[in-house]
Amino acid sequence: MSDQSKTSDTDASAMWGGRFSGGPNDIMEEINASIGFDQRFFAQDIRASKAHAEMLGAQNIITPEDAQSICDGLDQVYGEIETGTFTFKRSLEDIHMNVEARLKEIIGEPGGRLHTGRSRNDQVANDFKLWVRDAIDQMDVAMQAMQAALIDQAEAHSASAMPGFTHMQIAQPVTLGHHLLAYVEMLGRDRSRLMDGRKRMNECVLGAAALAGTSFPIDRHMTAKALGFDRPSANSLDSVADRDYVLEYLSALSITSVHLSRLAEEYVLWCSVQFSYARLGDSFSTGSSIMPQKRNPDAAELIRAKSGRVIGSLNALLIVMKGLPMTYGKDMQEDKEPIFDAHDTVMLSLAAMTGMLGDTTFNKERMAADAGKGFSTATDLADWLVRVLGMPFRDAHHVTGAVVKMAEDKGLGLDDLTLDDLQSIEPRIMNAIFEILSVDNSLKSRISVGGTAPSNVVSACAEARKRFL
Amino acid sequence: MSDQSKTSDTDASAMWGGRFSGGPNDIMEEINASIGFDQRFFAQDIRASKAHAEMLGAQNIITPEDAQSICDGLDQVYGEIETGTFTFKRSLEDIHMNVEARLKEIIGEPGGRLHTGRSRNDQVANDFKLWVRDAIDQMDVAMQAMQAALIDQAEAHSASAMPGFTHMQIAQPVTLGHHLLAYVEMLGRDRSRLMDGRKRMNECVLGAAALAGTSFPIDRHMTAKALGFDRPSANSLDSVADRDYVLEYLSALSITSVHLSRLAEEYVLWCSVQFSYARLGDSFSTGSSIMPQKRNPDAAELIRAKSGRVIGSLNALLIVMKGLPMTYGKDMQEDKEPIFDAHDTVMLSLAAMTGMLGDTTFNKERMAADAGKGFSTATDLADWLVRVLGMPFRDAHHVTGAVVKMAEDKGLGLDDLTLDDLQSIEPRIMNAIFEILSVDNSLKSRISVGGTAPSNVVSACAEARKRFL
Amino acid sequence: MSDQSKTSDTDASAMWGGRFSGGPNDIMEEINASIGFDQRFFAQDIRASKAHAEMLGAQNIITPEDAQSICDGLDQVYGEIETGTFTFKRSLEDIHMNVEARLKEIIGEPGGRLHTGRSRNDQVANDFKLWVRDAIDQMDVAMQAMQAALIDQAEAHSASAMPGFTHMQIAQPVTLGHHLLAYVEMLGRDRSRLMDGRKRMNECVLGAAALAGTSFPIDRHMTAKALGFDRPSANSLDSVADRDYVLEYLSALSITSVHLSRLAEEYVLWCSVQFSYARLGDSFSTGSSIMPQKRNPDAAELIRAKSGRVIGSLNALLIVMKGLPMTYGKDMQEDKEPIFDAHDTVMLSLAAMTGMLGDTTFNKERMAADAGKGFSTATDLADWLVRVLGMPFRDAHHVTGAVVKMAEDKGLGLDDLTLDDLQSIEPRIMNAIFEILSVDNSLKSRISVGGTAPSNVVSACAEARKRFL
Amino acid sequence: MSDQSKTSDTDASAMWGGRFSGGPNDIMEEINASIGFDQRFFAQDIRASKAHAEMLGAQNIITPEDAQSICDGLDQVYGEIETGTFTFKRSLEDIHMNVEARLKEIIGEPGGRLHTGRSRNDQVANDFKLWVRDAIDQMDVAMQAMQAALIDQAEAHSASAMPGFTHMQIAQPVTLGHHLLAYVEMLGRDRSRLMDGRKRMNECVLGAAALAGTSFPIDRHMTAKALGFDRPSANSLDSVADRDYVLEYLSALSITSVHLSRLAEEYVLWCSVQFSYARLGDSFSTGSSIMPQKRNPDAAELIRAKSGRVIGSLNALLIVMKGLPMTYGKDMQEDKEPIFDAHDTVMLSLAAMTGMLGDTTFNKERMAADAGKGFSTATDLADWLVRVLGMPFRDAHHVTGAVVKMAEDKGLGLDDLTLDDLQSIEPRIMNAIFEILSVDNSLKSRISVGGTAPSNVVSACAEARKRFL
Repeated sequence: MSDQSKTSDTDASAMWGGRFSGGPNDIMEEINASIGFDQRFFAQDIRASKAHAEMLGAQNIITPEDAQSICDGLDQVYGEIETGTFTFKRSLEDIHMNVEARLKEIIGEPGGRLHTGRSRNDQVANDFKLWVRDAIDQMDVAMQAMQAALIDQAEAHSASAMPGFTHMQIAQPVTLGHHLLAYVEMLGRDRSRLMDGRKRMNECVLGAAALAGTSFPIDRHMTAKALGFDRPSANSLDSVADRDYVLEYLSALSITSVHLSRLAEEYVLWCSVQFSYARLGDSFSTGSSIMPQKRNPDAAELIRAKSGRVIGSLNALLIVMKGLPMTYGKDMQEDKEPIFDAHDTVMLSLAAMTGMLGDTTFNKERMAADAGKGFSTATDLADWLVRVLGMPFRDAHHVTGAVVKMAEDKGLGLDDLTLDDLQSIEPRIMNAIFEILSVDNSLKSRISVGGTAPSNVVSACAEARKRFL
Repeated sequence: MSDQSKTSDTDASAMWGGRFSGGPNDIMEEINASIGFDQRFFAQDIRASKAHAEMLGAQNIITPEDAQSICDGLDQVYGEIETGTFTFKRSLEDIHMNVEARLKEIIGEPGGRLHTGRSRNDQVANDFKLWVRDAIDQMDVAMQAMQAALIDQAEAHSASAMPGFTHMQIAQPVTLGHHLLAYVEMLGRDRSRLMDGRKRMNECVLGAAALAGTSFPIDRHMTAKALGFDRPSANSLDSVADRDYVLEYLSALSITSVHLSRLAEEYVLWCSVQFSYARLGDSFSTGSSIMPQKRNPDAAELIRAKSGRVIGSLNALLIVMKGLPMTYGKDMQEDKEPIFDAHDTVMLSLAAMTGMLGDTTFNKERMAADAGKGFSTATDLADWLVRVLGMPFRDAHHVTGAVVKMAEDKGLGLDDLTLDDLQSIEPRIMNAIFEILSVDNSLKSRISVGGTAPSNVVSACAEARKRFL
Repeated sequence: MSDQSKTSDTDASAMWGGRFSGGPNDIMEEINASIGFDQRFFAQDIRASKAHAEMLGAQNIITPEDAQSICDGLDQVYGEIETGTFTFKRSLEDIHMNVEARLKEIIGEPGGRLHTGRSRNDQVANDFKLWVRDAIDQMDVAMQAMQAALIDQAEAHSASAMPGFTHMQIAQPVTLGHHLLAYVEMLGRDRSRLMDGRKRMNECVLGAAALAGTSFPIDRHMTAKALGFDRPSANSLDSVADRDYVLEYLSALSITSVHLSRLAEEYVLWCSVQFSYARLGDSFSTGSSIMPQKRNPDAAELIRAKSGRVIGSLNALLIVMKGLPMTYGKDMQEDKEPIFDAHDTVMLSLAAMTGMLGDTTFNKERMAADAGKGFSTATDLADWLVRVLGMPFRDAHHVTGAVVKMAEDKGLGLDDLTLDDLQSIEPRIMNAIFEILSVDNSLKSRISVGGTAPSNVVSACAEARKRFL
Repeated sequence: MSDQSKTSDTDASAMWGGRFSGGPNDIMEEINASIGFDQRFFAQDIRASKAHAEMLGAQNIITPEDAQSICDGLDQVYGEIETGTFTFKRSLEDIHMNVEARLKEIIGEPGGRLHTGRSRNDQVANDFKLWVRDAIDQMDVAMQAMQAALIDQAEAHSASAMPGFTHMQIAQPVTLGHHLLAYVEMLGRDRSRLMDGRKRMNECVLGAAALAGTSFPIDRHMTAKALGFDRPSANSLDSVADRDYVLEYLSALSITSVHLSRLAEEYVLWCSVQFSYARLGDSFSTGSSIMPQKRNPDAAELIRAKSGRVIGSLNALLIVMKGLPMTYGKDMQEDKEPIFDAHDTVMLSLAAMTGMLGDTTFNKERMAADAGKGFSTATDLADWLVRVLGMPFRDAHHVTGAVVKMAEDKGLGLDDLTLDDLQSIEPRIMNAIFEILSVDNSLKSRISVGGTAPSNVVSACAEARKRFL
């Protein structure tokens, strides 16, 4: 896919001066051609070629008439591809040669002037950057949509109690709304990560030519501006050798896919008989011919699994780039399929998760019942001992431990113990303590910034709408 | 893809008792359907279904007539797929349902009896095992072909001197034949690794049913035998939850892809102007429109890069399987695409490398000249001091170091020094020493088992033919 | 760590002929020295050196007296390291130079003869192979111990009902014993994989020397035999460039760590309040100062997590080896830490899991109660319709679906429906059907090979003892 | 390492109310304790505890006297650790308990009040964030130092010709200065990536408590400000469950390590006899006892290899985090060792590479000679045909191809052909063409933005100093 190298056949051999008498065989074409996947950025290729042609015209490197002719011809090619009448030829290897060859068929000689002052090396890097930039913008919208779905459910459940878990053990009561907003934060970071990467990559590489720059009096600032880049890249060798923008996007997607896998795992658990916290609607569950009541969370399982696929793609490209000397090596043609697959996978996972969130009925009673299990308000008791009796934290923990043990031995909940029971362990305990042992009061008390109190969740939802939607 | 779960639409909804009124939407179908890739093992699916049907007939679980009817119908389905007249329906999700639905269209009611005593869980695992087993057998042949190409070149170059490198520095002379035979050994281990994995996986899982076995009086030994398995698997839960055979094949392919990347790296270097050791033929190199003399080793670069892709696939599936509770989870549907891609990638890489090996002209003069550079026979000198003068090895190294330093200071090769020069460092050195300072004599002397002496290489080639071809 | 290269300082500079006047600085020593980790195979280094010395003596390459002196000296060095009186010097870079330098201090001049006919390149590869081989043998014992713990629990629970899951949904009843035996099978494959790798790697590389073999009349068969190898390696270049045995061991450990992560995930779930299937003893759980009744399954979580670490190590070494030209490169020094860490991690994980298995109390009542949930005997009903009424399987599924729907609508279990209820759906159903709708009868019926019937589990345990213990 | 869970022994058992009679055994302590590695952030732990105590005092949650006493005590603990007199106890599991236990020994009862309103879950996350933030700042300085070393060499070689490579084939002449500046750009992106991640993670999690927030009237803004954070985190569940900052730092380090591996690969090639472009000084090369003239680029090889290690660590933590339900799981204790290792590895690699750059002598003559090989000015010829003769680019390529073929057939360079030769191919070619066929003129002509012209390189160096140093 570089200007320096490509295979030949009837169509392409002319460009190599007829030097390859043997011709590439099937294996070589199979391993070498990229048109099978790089046609995906035809729109970016044509857009960039138009910007390049206009600059060549403005700089009088080609005539304005030729520039216009090229742009018109490229518009026609675009239309043909868009409408499906274009025939991609594998013998022309890649999207760039396919477009250019067709352009020449349409407009003749001026078509041969388009490639002035550029090379396939900067062309492919530039097209690919445009594609990644567009992909980031799509991804951002998809993440925002999932945030919206989370916030909707969080608002509906700002006061719905559920157990907060550590080690899959019930630790303290929280609200479902608060739980869901945790994922809104994750996606917020994910989006911010995308935007940072977008800004960092937003330098135009057109004009780096093969690797050394060019002697044509091109105006790289003009091309950069036309294509929405912040500036031209600073070093021509780096420009054609760099794939950081792909690696960075893959890294960001890997982290997102891990976030999604965590919520997916929770969905799988919540849909189990043992938890029974959530019931998926018809659209996002699958049944069984024999057990029609089943609502298997297949989509959640697949989302969980697909994190492997995304991380695998990141890993693949890091390995490809390892140890490559400057500048372009054909190795770098292996950059596209991983990112295409990772992008599609995360887009699909986000869509499925967003759909699931809107299609889930939560079992509030079940969750609330579990929220009180496991002596989940023991921390409240200890905090009370500290706050009201002035006990040091560690001592309060010791007393609480004794209370919990008593409750467990008696098979009771903490608020089922009598004042006598409690005073047998710590005589200063008063009746007021029973106010803080219920799930609801525990929840209401967590009003520290970022805490789970229902009032906090209501304002956090409003705040999240402002920050993210 | 399990018996327990699948999405519905017009075709499939009947099987779920009409319970899903909403119907799956596009996202769900997109994320859930596997027919896009699992149609690849239609032949294995049909083969296994025939074996199952015959067993059901032999055990009188279904009538012999039904069994025959099923087998005939399956043969017809096979023919339809083979000839391209079969229409795969995404609404039927996977290859198994597509085949079975068509079978019922063809033979009617008996088609509904095929699935007796089995489940999609054991069916998919068994089909996939058959596919992996077939893939291993193909891979073995491809590896053998590359060994043959290596041995051919090794025989032609059993006495061609080249530098042996450590740290990319010239260390000692070796022969090109010996160098190429190193890769024959690697591929030998690769093939042996495949065969071990094949043997380990060769247990039939049909009859594990959904996960618990079945109450039908099936004969698992009969099915296993019919499908070329060594025995039925020992535990039904393990049978449907296990994907070790895929992970093990991916591990083996990853190691092979690393081997190929090493030879590919050498090709890239050998084809550089700085080395100029090898010249690729027309078929496996690419040129440039502007520099037709170029013979870019694109295939070698791609082979080197594709190791990233294979390792990425291994990584992906290890991640998918991490932390999955028993038994089948939909996550496991993500097992197919990585192995299909890795298998195809290594098959293609092997084919390209085999082709390159046959299409390479080695520059013997250049390699021989380099073989003598860098005082590459210094070890021979040191060994001579030990062998003839009885010096301890470490002392001999010290003397040799001084000789090398003298030669370097004088800008001479070791065998350009005079006896006086040498004796000024170590008086006991005699004229006989000059016999061992030439590249050819160095090579001839390395007759230890596995050593690089041309005579060794000749016999090693003959031995390799016996062991591997 | 190769013979060709090392840094100098006061100790080592003499060996380099005083050429490096500048001396390595701290950074270089920090990045270059391996003694910090490779001292771990001192025993293997000394064992191999003794075998080499004995061979040199037997071949009269050195005198028998020198050989004896070397062996005695090496025994003394071994004793010093074993008892902790040996001082490792970082300036001597690696274990090989540390041992040899001390040997020369002890025995003087003959110490300088040990390295005759070998190089650090073959020495390090050979030592490392011996270490990996020993590691495999230890690992095999640890895996066997876990199999024993599994079989013990499986025997105790051969008839304990639990739900069999797919998609974390209750699918069919199984026995806990059967469930645990699934892991015995996995470990059985793991052990077999180790043994295959051990056999494949069991070729002695001593005598490959730097890379080309040697002109000394060494007897590689003698050394190989003395060190328990099956034969000498066939190609000297491959011998020093090969790290397949490390990659293969890491691959095997990665698969094992995935197996362990699956059981660990189940433990985490089983220990949750929602499941409450298992209760860990004091030794393998952790509590909380405030909630002393807690038994957090920390060890299980860590085992689950550590799969990431092991897979990371495999990935790391595959990347290290990617694209390395022949033969030895310093890159390969990065082979040791990943395998040391992965080996230790899996050994620890196996020990912890084995301990947990012995320290777990299963809640049979809870598991049995869950085993009957979710209409888990629906498949039995369908199979009965096929077997007794001769319905095609797919039709039987349809009827069963209707029965399940009726039971769900009525809020009853399948065996709570009346015969009238059932006959309203399928008139041919008889009273006998109630015999197969209970969990226990379902279990008993699964007597196909590998099925979950308690009688099967009993014999499978006996069989497993024979196969594995 | 969470507040909810820890193992006990003589020291810790009191805190669990004596519930664990059995006591943890060695395996459990081995797998569970983190003090072996988390003592690395003792300074961060103490700093954060002081900020927490001061806030508790300011809010009157504890008395100002107790707050002061705690801070003084913590200062003493810090001093003890700093001076090496502190005894870490594995029985106290982690750095947090070690510090707190010692604090109580020193100041008595008030020590038990420090943990009020916080938990180990937010404490460990906050300490770790502080450590990562400090690590990023160190890393930034190290990257800047390498940029400085690159710019120094680039300035010295702003006009030194070398071949620009694609596919390891000579493509066009560039300058060494331009080549080195490509890496300055990469490091510039690397630093910018670090800074973005630093900003994103810069939210204080103290006050999230175990997971739900707290009922104590803490002031999270005050603590955040005191510790240099931009704000408190918005969601308590996310706060304790999040490890994005570690994953993002590992991603950034992985990309940097790939950059370093590319330069390392070039160093290995440049130091080979075949290239002979660079000669390492004594400090960063290693020799051989037998070949003292050797300057093996061991450091470069190790830097190249260590990319595997860093990528392996990223992969490991992504796997650890995959599928973890909210909130804290013990799995997350596996977050520290990968990041410690990756940070140290990249710091060392940067130091070694920076040192190598300062210690390298480039062989300008050799590089310049190679710069003219391979018809490297063919593009200049083609561009001349376009610019001067007005030929379409593709036609110009065709003519150039014919010229190159002629030169190759005659065994001449392009500028060795006569005007007659050239005109036999294209009659319009004039004598002026010879001005552009030399390496120097080719270089001088590449004055497009980012191009390799020496004048560009001079100004690019000045610009880089302003942007980065």
